[in-house]
Amino acid sequence: MTALPRQIRALLFDVFGTVVDWRSSLLRECRTLGRRKKLAVDWAAFADAWRGGYSPAMARVRSGELPWMNIDQLHRMILDGLLPRFGIDSLTEDEIDHLNRIWHRLDPWPDARRGLALLKRRHVIATLSNGNVALLVNMAKHGRLPWDAVLSAELFHHYKPDPEAYLGAAAMLGFEPSEVMMVAAHKDDLRAAQACGLATAFVRRPREKGPGVKLDVAPEPSFDYNARNFVDLARRIPR
Amino acid sequence: MTALPRQIRALLFDVFGTVVDWRSSLLRECRTLGRRKKLAVDWAAFADAWRGGYSPAMARVRSGELPWMNIDQLHRMILDGLLPRFGIDSLTEDEIDHLNRIWHRLDPWPDARRGLALLKRRHVIATLSNGNVALLVNMAKHGRLPWDAVLSAELFHHYKPDPEAYLGAAAMLGFEPSEVMMVAAHKDDLRAAQACGLATAFVRRPREKGPGVKLDVAPEPSFDYNARNFVDLARRIPR
Repeated sequence: MTALPRQIRALLFDVFGTVVDWRSSLLRECRTLGRRKKLAVDWAAFADAWRGGYSPAMARVRSGELPWMNIDQLHRMILDGLLPRFGIDSLTEDEIDHLNRIWHRLDPWPDARRGLALLKRRHVIATLSNGNVALLVNMAKHGRLPWDAVLSAELFHHYKPDPEAYLGAAAMLGFEPSEVMMVAAHKDDLRAAQACGLATAFVRRPREKGPGVKLDVAPEPSFDYNARNFVDLARRIPR
Repeated sequence: MTALPRQIRALLFDVFGTVVDWRSSLLRECRTLGRRKKLAVDWAAFADAWRGGYSPAMARVRSGELPWMNIDQLHRMILDGLLPRFGIDSLTEDEIDHLNRIWHRLDPWPDARRGLALLKRRHVIATLSNGNVALLVNMAKHGRLPWDAVLSAELFHHYKPDPEAYLGAAAMLGFEPSEVMMVAAHKDDLRAAQACGLATAFVRRPREKGPGVKLDVAPEPSFDYNARNFVDLARRIPR
């Protein structure tokens, strides 16, 4: 072991909000569904409520109140509560299941695919998402995201920010935590990774929650990198 | 559920011998090492003995005699026994560790990369190997293998042919076993997958164990496909 900073060998990516634009993707597909099924729904409020149920649902799993449930199951549990709340009562079970898998069909941010291809040249690039493996694999097919590996909290039965997720992913790739960098648009995710000894890269996604929500996207010197997007990050990491 | 045969959605690939030519890769790199370190070793016998220790070592894990150990650890355990047996006593710990990771640097069979790219167009393609995730990810970087997902017995703590490996991989991809096809050059692997309800594709690799060993590569009607190589398999699967 050396006291010098180690070379970064692998990059782990948060996915929802960091790689893919969940809100625009949800809005586009939900509005199409609404027209087809003649539903008068405030889809922006619906999308925000669905995403808003995500952290509390994971917190119930993390605390042990709920047994391990993957994100498809948690998304469905939240959705089953939202449908009556938004007066949506005309969907068949197949249509509800298809709607629930909307999270498998999210579109990447415009820079994501090109940035990942650049980063892949010199590093192992892998997801480290709370999304389940099937969701992440389907999303990668949908968005042509060139992951070297699809890692998920599902493999460790611990949702981020539990340390088991970060440490488990580094170990599974055969690297020390200090050889791995977490890439995310969310500072709490990065701080948890940092506490496990990982390097960190913050990527600005100011529009993640829509045009009306002002997010904290200020660079922070405690992160190893603060980048505008993935292409910018690829240019900043020294060769 | 329908009684009709389901469409194949995902292909799971055995790796050692099916995707990569482990024996030629080992021989080439070991002979280079031997010249550099001036070692007079029968490297073909060494490679065959190393590979020969693999199934018995996994059997000791499967039976519970050994705790869970990944393939890097099992390869190293076997290697530590082989070095004195072959009179190799001049390697440093770093050199032994590098030699042990030779399994991360195996070259694909000539048709593999092109065949996988063709198969990836219409299916999820994933490894299902007894090799550990780090080994498979490094091998994919080395050989530019375009996996959608890197799945391993390591994720289930059950080596093939335990049913947990096949059923776990199908479930992790979100498919029924009947929607998934195991692709392998080894009939015992396919028979175990078949017993779990997976479809099966046999791929002939007559040279896997070298020019002197005649392998059973006869087509068998019990398999869904019998293919010459991955490109041939891609052409046979109906669109």
